[in-house]
Amino acid sequence: MAQQHPDVRHPGAPYADARPFDPGAPYADARPLDAGAPAPAPVLTAYLRAQGAEFLRALAAWAGGGPAQGGEADAAPVLRGTARRIGATLHTFHGAFDPAWSTGLRRELAWFSGTLAQERLHAATLRRLQAALQEPQGDLGTARAAALLERRLTLARGRAHSAVLEALGSARFHALADAVALLGGDVPLRGGAAVEPRDLASATEQQLADAVAALPAEPETGPCPVPPGDGDAAWHQVRSLLRLHRYALEALGLPVPSRLTAAARTLDRHRDAAEAASVAADAARTPRIAPATAYALGNLHAHQRHEALAARRAFHRTWQSVPRSRNTVTVP
Amino acid sequence: MAQQHPDVRHPGAPYADARPFDPGAPYADARPLDAGAPAPAPVLTAYLRAQGAEFLRALAAWAGGGPAQGGEADAAPVLRGTARRIGATLHTFHGAFDPAWSTGLRRELAWFSGTLAQERLHAATLRRLQAALQEPQGDLGTARAAALLERRLTLARGRAHSAVLEALGSARFHALADAVALLGGDVPLRGGAAVEPRDLASATEQQLADAVAALPAEPETGPCPVPPGDGDAAWHQVRSLLRLHRYALEALGLPVPSRLTAAARTLDRHRDAAEAASVAADAARTPRIAPATAYALGNLHAHQRHEALAARRAFHRTWQSVPRSRNTVTVP
Repeated sequence: MAQQHPDVRHPGAPYADARPFDPGAPYADARPLDAGAPAPAPVLTAYLRAQGAEFLRALAAWAGGGPAQGGEADAAPVLRGTARRIGATLHTFHGAFDPAWSTGLRRELAWFSGTLAQERLHAATLRRLQAALQEPQGDLGTARAAALLERRLTLARGRAHSAVLEALGSARFHALADAVALLGGDVPLRGGAAVEPRDLASATEQQLADAVAALPAEPETGPCPVPPGDGDAAWHQVRSLLRLHRYALEALGLPVPSRLTAAARTLDRHRDAAEAASVAADAARTPRIAPATAYALGNLHAHQRHEALAARRAFHRTWQSVPRSRNTVTVP
Repeated sequence: MAQQHPDVRHPGAPYADARPFDPGAPYADARPLDAGAPAPAPVLTAYLRAQGAEFLRALAAWAGGGPAQGGEADAAPVLRGTARRIGATLHTFHGAFDPAWSTGLRRELAWFSGTLAQERLHAATLRRLQAALQEPQGDLGTARAAALLERRLTLARGRAHSAVLEALGSARFHALADAVALLGGDVPLRGGAAVEPRDLASATEQQLADAVAALPAEPETGPCPVPPGDGDAAWHQVRSLLRLHRYALEALGLPVPSRLTAAARTLDRHRDAAEAASVAADAARTPRIAPATAYALGNLHAHQRHEALAARRAFHRTWQSVPRSRNTVTVP
């Protein structure tokens, strides 16, 4: 129904037929804490350990709490956030870890956090569209459009929730949880020459800077048509890179400047508005809807596209205020 | 079909049953160039004379040129502009002229310029909506919506054009043209105490400043719904007052600051976008249209409302850069 964003992979594909990740499999190149290995980056391994512990605590809270205690609602964002942070650290500092191990674990974390994210996205889209449609519009079509969107998104969220529960009960997830538990012990490092973590983080920062520089400038005003959604992918890519950069700073124990966090929020808003616009457009293709409903959905679509445009402008303004250096991780 | 704006009065109402304006009727209080009258404002009477001459030249060009020579297309904006300037001068400097004469002439000028404006507005709206719909949208509904709007607006413009031709052939218009021709002679001034034209212009400027101060601030971004058109009237009022202020400066022989002209353009854009949005909403109420057409019209409506919002923001930015003084006409 809704378009797939790079960071929200469908739980079923392309990892559905992947063999469960075996945390105990031997790592050809790995020499955990081998005396001859390059100096490990204790700050990175400590970060992975802390995130892994947080992940396991949230998992236990979910299992113990049940929906009535709100354990699920509290635990899901923590599981998603820690899974992303571990995955991002393995990605950015790939050169510091055993490649086969980190690639495998990263793939499984992406599968699990993507499954969780899908449910959150449907819920957030429903809230956003309901807020936009709740204002008095004096139009029967608006009430019908709200009802149509609520039906569709509630259904999608229910399906996404089932997928989360199914994932949690799977052997694949149990293997993943075991692998996360092992982060509490020795982290498999890459053999060979020493890699300076800051250089690896700099590469991500540079990728981010390049991706931002390649973004088109958004016109402030003008007789432009309703902006099409074609250009969204470049923005979603910047959002992913900015997240990687923020997590890399975190992993290195560096503070994340508040302006980076603000820039990330504008990109979240862009993603949410683009998703809401796409959902409104999809709903307008429902067979046999009344013209008034379609009209209200058209209004909603254009409004959300303008919200996305406003978020892009806000990002540019925020970004221009972010001090950055090239080829070095900015120490804020 | 389209909503009536304060400055675009329907040619039929409320003046339809007005008796033709008699330029030769006696003016109870008027003492034209009476030796005992207050000093006339030569600059104002010269301005009225020049605008009147321009009006008559355009009228002759229209009568002589015919549509093939483009006489009509060239003459209509001049007729509209001069009629507005004469009317605005009579309004702002009301205290300087014979009240019965100026009220009567102003009413007739408003009727005629309003009749002309209606046709221009339909043509401008059609151009604006066609431009918005011409961009590739990849949607069958867009093509159908464009065809529907073109049919409706072409019809409305045709009706407005007939109204203009009917007006031009009427006894009412001939009386008006005679009254404008009399501006070349003596302008009936008000008897009694002297009135300083600058004080009268200051009153208009103050009204404008108050109306601008009463405008709500427009949010830059945020999860607002599609902005409703309810607040448009206050903006159209500011547009009318700004026009009065610009014409008052002109009439006094003072230069009009370019930033005032720029502010006026943002309000023209606001009016045009609000009108286009209203036309799109009206078209969506056409019986038996396809949902895809209604969806495209909804998009168009919301887009034009956002254009109106952008124009409001642009006005606020431009206005903040306009230097103004209180209680005196700003000498730029």
